[in-house]
Amino acid sequence: MKLLDIYAKMKSDLDILEGKLAQSVTSDHSLLSETSTHLLKAGGKRIRPVFVLLSGKFGEYRLETLEKIAVSLELIHMSSLVHDDVIDNADTRRGQLTVKSKWDNRIAMYTGDYIFGKALTIVTELKNPLIHQILSKAMVQMCIGEMEQIRDFFNTEQSIRDYLLRIRRKTALLIATSCQLGAIAAGAEWWVSNRLYRFGYNVGMAFQIGDDLLDLLGTEKQIGKPPGSDIRQGNITLPVLLALQEQGREQLLHELNKIRESDGAGDTKKALNIIRRSAGIRISEELAARYISKATQALADLPDIPAKKNLTDIAHFVAKRNY
Amino acid sequence: MKLLDIYAKMKSDLDILEGKLAQSVTSDHSLLSETSTHLLKAGGKRIRPVFVLLSGKFGEYRLETLEKIAVSLELIHMSSLVHDDVIDNADTRRGQLTVKSKWDNRIAMYTGDYIFGKALTIVTELKNPLIHQILSKAMVQMCIGEMEQIRDFFNTEQSIRDYLLRIRRKTALLIATSCQLGAIAAGAEWWVSNRLYRFGYNVGMAFQIGDDLLDLLGTEKQIGKPPGSDIRQGNITLPVLLALQEQGREQLLHELNKIRESDGAGDTKKALNIIRRSAGIRISEELAARYISKATQALADLPDIPAKKNLTDIAHFVAKRNY
Repeated sequence: MKLLDIYAKMKSDLDILEGKLAQSVTSDHSLLSETSTHLLKAGGKRIRPVFVLLSGKFGEYRLETLEKIAVSLELIHMSSLVHDDVIDNADTRRGQLTVKSKWDNRIAMYTGDYIFGKALTIVTELKNPLIHQILSKAMVQMCIGEMEQIRDFFNTEQSIRDYLLRIRRKTALLIATSCQLGAIAAGAEWWVSNRLYRFGYNVGMAFQIGDDLLDLLGTEKQIGKPPGSDIRQGNITLPVLLALQEQGREQLLHELNKIRESDGAGDTKKALNIIRRSAGIRISEELAARYISKATQALADLPDIPAKKNLTDIAHFVAKRNY
Repeated sequence: MKLLDIYAKMKSDLDILEGKLAQSVTSDHSLLSETSTHLLKAGGKRIRPVFVLLSGKFGEYRLETLEKIAVSLELIHMSSLVHDDVIDNADTRRGQLTVKSKWDNRIAMYTGDYIFGKALTIVTELKNPLIHQILSKAMVQMCIGEMEQIRDFFNTEQSIRDYLLRIRRKTALLIATSCQLGAIAAGAEWWVSNRLYRFGYNVGMAFQIGDDLLDLLGTEKQIGKPPGSDIRQGNITLPVLLALQEQGREQLLHELNKIRESDGAGDTKKALNIIRRSAGIRISEELAARYISKATQALADLPDIPAKKNLTDIAHFVAKRNY
């Protein structure tokens, strides 16, 4: 099944979620409502909510419960994006002005804090402390991942393992948690939520590798921001680390150094060309594919309900993002 | 009883808390541990933990439970301070370098996020969803309060009511919540936790008014940062609003405008002199005293245990901070 068809089948539930998301950030403070709504309207694939709902199908599917998990996770994700845009000094995301660029850094910081707080308010309406616990732990890991990213900026000596640990925290754990909490909230058995966690974790790893590839290979139109943004800000991703293990290493180091010294204003064209020509691209694609295959294997023992097929299809879609 | 005596009597429990606080922010990420520990060591009065513990005396006092509330509230408070320092562009706090000045704004932002996440992890160890709910709501209000402060920067037309609503959200609600949650976690009756909430709310209002007075009247040594910081950054507090209702209004407006235009570099001496000579000081002190009296009244019906006397004494101390 195509991705659009899966979304179409879930449309009525997703529409309700979209309404709840919009409602969740309307406060008696107009500027906060405005910044948050701006953010919401920029859209996104809502992949975390979709995973929550599909994972909920492995238990007793109750939208009133699942929607709280889904809205909360999407808000936490959004909140981290606003803070990242401050860090990355990003002017656009998904082709839209960022909060920090349309307003300013201070407003973006508090908008992030506010959305984060709202996420918690919503999830705490569920009276299951286990859910609160799992969520808060995932959030701490996410923060550590973000901080590791800053620490590793322009560090060309970092290992592949450093990169994988970082994206695990930064991206994969929250997606894993989406699947796990969807299952737990639906009262699925423990082993079921564990398998879904593993599914989400592996899809999340592939997803981030795919995202990092897209930043190197995509067009500005596809990405919603100029390609090479990662290297411009010093975020050394897998394909770059792999390219640094090849012949062009010295030239690439030289280019990365020039970019670093230009303080974000430098030209990334030459560095991009070296990376694009390297085997780092293919090896990264293969690793992403391996994660996808592990993800689908994690589902093997689960009952053959339509949601299982949907999750598998989404995983394959993540693997084949057209860059 | 003097404040120091109250702290001395609680010393063994507070020492345990201090240990838990230090432990809570040690992570496998060294920079985050370092920034958080730097922050912790800067100290503070730990007023929120003290209120949690004393309120817990009105129920079944169990330190293992109360400490989780206390540590969590202190971390939330600290997390908001780090983010505020980014907003206020503050270089020192309590006489120590701020995280944003010792490291940078980006690190300060993620340090705040991380400490916030840690606070949640700790409080979610308590299996009482009501506690999680109350806490998350207080956090959202705090964010709105911070945002209102930005919105109202240099707004000399705001009303006294705007100011009071703002400090209610920014400060008083979290202190109220400290008292309320201490009581709830100790299994105190509902009306008891309500009274303690009201106590904390009124002390919190007085506390913030006192803080705002201190910034206008204290010495750099007392405050830990140069006096007049609030007006330098555009934070128009109660005494200033009151001074603006007097004869010196035009001159004060002129001075505030100069400060605004100087973008934080301006001289606050003249403005400070006008405010210090105005009746705004006395009226603010009277209002703070009124809040303190409401606070102690809220305790009237509670059983006459030593903790009640301690809370009353602390309230009176808050009223008489030596500026």
